[in-house]
This record gives sequence, structure tokens and C-alpha cells, in this order.
Amino acid sequence: MKNWMITLITDFGATEYVGAMKGIIFSICPKARIVDITHNIKKFDIRRAAYAVYSSCKYFPKGTVHVVVVDPGVGTDRRSIIIKTEEHLYVGPDNGVFSFIDDVKEVYEIEYPAKSRTFHGRDVFAPIAAYLECGASPKDYGKLTDEYIKIVLKKYIKEDVIGGEVICVDDFGNVITNIKREDLEKIGVTYGGSLKMRLKGRIRTLKLLESYGFSRPGDLITVIGSEDYLEISVNQGNAAERLKIKGGEELEVFK
Amino acid sequence: MKNWMITLITDFGATEYVGAMKGIIFSICPKARIVDITHNIKKFDIRRAAYAVYSSCKYFPKGTVHVVVVDPGVGTDRRSIIIKTEEHLYVGPDNGVFSFIDDVKEVYEIEYPAKSRTFHGRDVFAPIAAYLECGASPKDYGKLTDEYIKIVLKKYIKEDVIGGEVICVDDFGNVITNIKREDLEKIGVTYGGSLKMRLKGRIRTLKLLESYGFSRPGDLITVIGSEDYLEISVNQGNAAERLKIKGGEELEVFK
Amino acid sequence: MKNWMITLITDFGATEYVGAMKGIIFSICPKARIVDITHNIKKFDIRRAAYAVYSSCKYFPKGTVHVVVVDPGVGTDRRSIIIKTEEHLYVGPDNGVFSFIDDVKEVYEIEYPAKSRTFHGRDVFAPIAAYLECGASPKDYGKLTDEYIKIVLKKYIKEDVIGGEVICVDDFGNVITNIKREDLEKIGVTYGGSLKMRLKGRIRTLKLLESYGFSRPGDLITVIGSEDYLEISVNQGNAAERLKIKGGEELEVFK
Repeated sequence: MKNWMITLITDFGATEYVGAMKGIIFSICPKARIVDITHNIKKFDIRRAAYAVYSSCKYFPKGTVHVVVVDPGVGTDRRSIIIKTEEHLYVGPDNGVFSFIDDVKEVYEIEYPAKSRTFHGRDVFAPIAAYLECGASPKDYGKLTDEYIKIVLKKYIKEDVIGGEVICVDDFGNVITNIKREDLEKIGVTYGGSLKMRLKGRIRTLKLLESYGFSRPGDLITVIGSEDYLEISVNQGNAAERLKIKGGEELEVFK
Repeated sequence: MKNWMITLITDFGATEYVGAMKGIIFSICPKARIVDITHNIKKFDIRRAAYAVYSSCKYFPKGTVHVVVVDPGVGTDRRSIIIKTEEHLYVGPDNGVFSFIDDVKEVYEIEYPAKSRTFHGRDVFAPIAAYLECGASPKDYGKLTDEYIKIVLKKYIKEDVIGGEVICVDDFGNVITNIKREDLEKIGVTYGGSLKMRLKGRIRTLKLLESYGFSRPGDLITVIGSEDYLEISVNQGNAAERLKIKGGEELEVFK
Repeated sequence: MKNWMITLITDFGATEYVGAMKGIIFSICPKARIVDITHNIKKFDIRRAAYAVYSSCKYFPKGTVHVVVVDPGVGTDRRSIIIKTEEHLYVGPDNGVFSFIDDVKEVYEIEYPAKSRTFHGRDVFAPIAAYLECGASPKDYGKLTDEYIKIVLKKYIKEDVIGGEVICVDDFGNVITNIKREDLEKIGVTYGGSLKMRLKGRIRTLKLLESYGFSRPGDLITVIGSEDYLEISVNQGNAAERLKIKGGEELEVFK
């Protein structure tokens, strides 16, 4: 079944700029079913956008076109791209927002005349997504390319120490690291136990709990988040603010 | 007419977590029509969520499934439930968010294996809502139960004094009480007149106006809100901040 | 093709009040396709709402009904109106929110009994929009009128000086003026060059760039925005906060 689905991820804060994009999409492809994934990406936070793309787009049905507009370089010579995976298409700026998609098949550099220099969401990405969902092919709007910009995350396991980094902070203030459940298993850290974490020059012993609610409100804990990554959390609080942590911060975990 | 409608109420702040839930729903039930009611519930504010459920879900057409995810206890042993009313189904945690639904017919305790311990919105409530909207029955996902958690609001009328409490504060800062228009009529308080209110140890005389705009910007007033409850408001301002009031605060009203 | 489209612009902040409006619309017109344009208009900021209407509604397909609820005077004697343009209908309060629609054909003053005095979004505008999209005519809900409230913006060009004003500030903090690209061309200001701006008693020399990204983060610049208006911006920052500017501020531009 053709699903006509186009999703939107932006840092526009649910403003009328999103509305203009929707209008353009519906004008080109009246059957489109537009789905707001989020417009609350922290402005210009490419890393956060990349994680949002990773942790939501894959759940959509086959044939969905995903539009991502977190784009501090709009109007400059940064490229625009279409990414084709087994089941989906992605449209947006080539600035790292597609870093964590793990089944990329083809990448196209977009060639499309933009009406404005400041709003490619409306003038480039929205119309292309609409044409793609209505049957056009990526090659109608761009040429195949071998490269696109990817954020590469640091990660190593060495003598029972896992080194990693903070992918980003979510809207609850949870600090999402790139350390996976299976990494922790390798060094013998399991639910109900504790782990040691070196972060910003300080070593803390933290519990690894099955969910936030097993701690008291205000406790600093770790959990395995919904994408199987280790997260630092405060039950009903904001871990990132407490620790003054941003995306990119390096950390080490050991038993 | 089958409406395929599934609504969402969360405290996720319109983040990509909502997007992941939508993806899961569409993957299971491609015809679903997902409606965002709100994702701006104050985080973990169960009382606020319960009022949002009360004041919006009932307006939807027959057959709608409502998903509510305000869930500080996710992953603990708090139960998950399905509530069946005359026209609607509700899915969410059993923590009080369904307190103010007034035509409950049946309650089911959900039995469903969750992939994650931290995100039942995506892994339990979204898929069950999708299956229900696509034709499944509540008993396919749970067993009948006699009880569920309800917030009980205090309320009495005694010798021309109405005692009540603040249900919650809305996003405009309006303080919504559980005192109804007909309660006020019983003690002789009517539009255009004034009332006395004992609140946080202080007695104030406040006008009861037909709408905010009948006062000057900045005036502290009362109105009968859109659900027929007495509200304390500041025209173009924030009454809750001015009075430092939260949900649960007790108050008395007299003439 | 009938598109069944109804858009929403409010200052409700994506709360359940929006959800109640959606429920009412779907109950009256089950085939409706409701599109959130924005609910993030600054509360009671009519000027901002008017610009949001101008810069988004026109992109929607023919036959769309637009509902606008930014309504500090709800429940008072402010009128409610339906505006008919060549392709669209607009429903909302007569307080200036429709000021910048440039192809108005007919205006109707709404006559419709409201259930509440405080929430005409749910009790007047939503149902009327639903009836209109489902086939009713504006004259079924109101009578033709000659006048409606419009914000009139100051603008003049005199001896190579353009006088104008700030229409409003967008959610990125961009200061949107009513000076158009063609006005600037008349006084010889072009991309890559600079302009002088008198604003709040101070004259600044500012670059006119093709997009934000051509400056360094933090630089105060001007661009031609996506609606062809001159904007004052800070790359990855908030120009309005930096300059302490609000809608209505007057300015002059010269070479």
C-alpha cells in the first residue's frame, strides 16, 4: 500500500515556517500525509537532529520520505542531499544530520533552483519531498555522489574500560551516550549493579537501573535508554543541567 | 463511518519520541489518522494530564482511541490500562491520568511484553492503540479489572461556603478550580458580581466576569472557563505565577 | 480535487485547547484534514499572528479553510469574521489578525451562538470552519460587511531614505521589517553591499548578505527574508533580544 507519508524534523519550534512547508507539500502532492516528528530540535544543533533522525525515522512504514531542516548554513555553498535507504528517502542539508542512518544505499546531491536564499526548507526540501512521494525519482533532482558529511563518534573498549562520548542531550535532560548495552555486558556491568564513570575529570559511581522510576526523584542514575544506549538521568529532573554536559563530551565507563 | 482516529497526549514536549510513536502506529495500522492533542503537559504532572484528557478527548468522534503518556513510573510495577467508555478507548499508565473520565464502562489491565523499560509510549501504548483502532478488542491485550487509580478532588458546600481545590494550572496561567457554575449559583454568585475567595490564608474579593477581555490587562479576576469551572485569571497575564499557586491547593469561595 | 483541508494558527502553545478544537472539527466534518500551522504565536500578539497568516496560508491548496485564534478580546463585543479570498476562506476574530491578506474578496460578520464566553476557538471558529469545509457557505453563518480591522504599516521613500517599521519578530529572533527588496534596489542597496539603518535613535552600518551563513556566528547583519522583506538577524543568535526590538518600532534605511 502506498502510504503517501512525509515526515518533518526541524528546529523551527513549530512556527508558521513549518506551516509554509506543509502548504507547499500539499500543493504539489495533495494526497500527502504529513507527520510532524519534531520541530523542537535545539536551534542549529546538528548532533541532536542526527540522533532524532536515527531514533524515530526508522519506525515509519516503507516508502516514507523524511525531511530534515536543521540548517545553519542555509544559502551558503553547503550541499543539499537526498539519501536512499532500503525503505525510505531522506531530504535535507549535507551537514551531518544524516550521520547515524545505518543502511544508506545511495546519496544524491540536489540540483534545484531555490526561490529564496534563507528558507530552503520551503523552497527546496519541501517541494522535492513532495515530488518524491508523488512518484519522482531522486535522480530527477540530483546526481549520485559518493560522499556526505557524517559525525564520527569516538568509541573504544580497552582492558575493561569503555571510552565513548555523549551523542546529545534529549528534551528531558537525559544525557545519551554512544555506549551500548552489549558494551556494558562485555565489562560485566548489568542491571541492578553499578558502574564507574569518568566524566569532566571526575569519577562517579552510578547505579544502572532498569528504569527511572526505580530511583527516588532527584537521584542521579544511569539507565539503558529506548535505543539501547547508556543514558545518564535524574529521575524527574535534568541530568544535563546538573552535570553541565553537552553533546560531544567524552567519558569512560568501567566496573 | 470508521474514523481511524488515534489521539496523543504526552509530556514529551513535541520531541522525536512522539515521532517514534507515530511511526510505530502507522507501521501497524497504515490507515490511522493520528491527531496531536498536546505534548506540552508539564513533565510528570499527572493532574494536569488528567484535566487535559477530560477537557479534550470527549469532543472526538465515536471510535477514537486516545493514548496518554505522562508516566513517571515507566518500567516499574505500575500497571498499564485500557479504559473503555461508551464511545472511546483510552490507553496509558494506571497512575491517575484517567481520573476525570466520567463514563467509564470497563477497565483492562494490559498484559503486553515491552521491548524497552524506559519507553512504554513507543513499545506498549502506541502498538496497542494501533491494534485497537485496526479492529482488536481490549481483551486481546489485557484482563478485566475492577480498579484503577483516580485522583479524588475535595469539594463541599456548607452554609454558603464552597470548599474546593485547584485542579491544575493551564498553559496561560489560568488557575482552574473544581467549583462549577451551578455551585456558584447556589450561593448567589453571578456574572458581573463579585465573590470572596480564601486562598493560601488570604481572603480576596474578585470580580466574576463573563470573559477575560472585560477587565484591564493585568487585573486579577475570575471567569467561568470553557468546561464550566471557576477559573482565576489575569487578563493577558499569568494568574498562577502571580498567586504562586499549583494544582491541589485548597480554596473556599463565598459571597 | 476537494482537499478537506483546515489549518490552525493559534497562540495556545500546542495545549489540549487545540485538541478540543480538533475534536469538534472532526465530529462535524469527519473527512477533514487538519493541519497545524503554528500554535506558538506569542500570546495575544496580533501583529505576529497577522504575519504568520500572511507568510504561510497562501501556500496551501485552493479550498483550504484557515482558522486563526489569537484573541485577547474573546467574549467581549469584538466581532468575529469570515474572509473569502480567490482560493481560501479565513475564520477568526476581527482584531487585525487578517491585516496582511492581500486578495480579500468578501468579508462576513459571524452570527453564531457561542456555548462559552471564553473559548470561541472551540465554540465558534472550529465548528464554522468544519461546516465551511464540509460545504456550507459563509453567508450561512454571517452577513456581508464592508469593514474589518487592519493594521496599517508606515512606509515611505523620500530622497533615498526608506522609512518603515518592524512588522514583528519571528521565533528565531529575526526582526522582520516592511521594507521590500525592490525598495532597497530603488536606493541602490544590493547584496554584498551595506546599508545604514536608523533604529532607536542610533545609526548602524550593516551588511546585506544573501543568507545568515555568510556571516560569523554572532554577527549582526541584514538579509532579504523568505517573503522578500528586509530582516535584521544575528547568525545563530537573536537579533531582537540584542537590539531590544519589538513589532511596531519605526526605522529608516539609506545607503
